[in-house]
Parts: sequence; C-alpha cells; structure tokens
Amino acid sequence: MKARVTVTLKAGVLDPQGQAIEGSLKSLGFAGVASVRQGKVFDLVLDGTDEAAARSALNSMCEKLLANTVIENYAVEISN
Amino acid sequence: MKARVTVTLKAGVLDPQGQAIEGSLKSLGFAGVASVRQGKVFDLVLDGTDEAAARSALNSMCEKLLANTVIENYAVEISN
Repeated sequence: MKARVTVTLKAGVLDPQGQAIEGSLKSLGFAGVASVRQGKVFDLVLDGTDEAAARSALNSMCEKLLANTVIENYAVEISN
Repeated sequence: MKARVTVTLKAGVLDPQGQAIEGSLKSLGFAGVASVRQGKVFDLVLDGTDEAAARSALNSMCEKLLANTVIENYAVEISN
C-alpha cells in the first residue's frame, strides 16, 4: 500500500525558507508571487492491505516522528 | 490563486534522509514500513486569475529554481 504524508507549517508560523524562495523567484523575474511556504512530503510504502490500520499507524507516525504538531499540520493520503 | 508544487526524487536516486526516517520508524516500533522517500512541497499564492498562465509560470519556476530536474520530478496543482 502506498501513502503520502504532507507536512506543512501552521498558519502564523514564520517560514524564512519560504520567504527566501519568494525573494529568489522575484529576483528571477517571476512577478505576481504573493507568498511561498515550504513543507515536506513523505512517500511511504507499507506492507499489508488494511487501510484503516494503515491510516491509524500513519497518524501515529506523524504524531511521533514525521511532524512537529506544535507548529506543523499533517495530511495523510492512502492509495492502493 | 493557490498552487501546490510537489518535488520528489526520481526513482533510482538514493535518498539517505528517507532511509534514516525509515530506520527511525522501525526503531519506534512501526513494523511493515517497506520504504520511505522524502520530498518537498511548496504552497504558493499567485496574483492573477489566468490558470494557463499560472501553470506555465509555475513550470518555469520549477525548472529554474524549485526542482533540480536532473534528480527530481515535480508536479503542479492549481486550486482557485
């Protein structure tokens, strides 16, 4: 089973990396970029076929390791 | 207009960061994780409402700055 976990900064959390990318895009001539925020994506391959169990394990992985839930949100998508 | 750019390593490119996460997940007791690969996600807000122009600009941003197309793939999603 394949899963994608997307971890993004919560609204209001400063993102200097995103701001640097925004500045670089502007200096490359891309006008009209109002904001850039960077996040992380994890593509996992899991053994087993029980989607509910996988979703529960993935949420637990996010809480324990993949995301810092103080400042980050996470989203889990499962594709078979 | 909002856009999400997802940048992932091409198949075959070594991902030591993903391997480290996979090892950490296993040592935290998550069995059944067959593989982890890490990528990046960029959430952009763009001025303007022309979706075709935005898509073209985003592809150009990926080619020039956001992705290293030698080793990375990118995907662009636009949501209004």
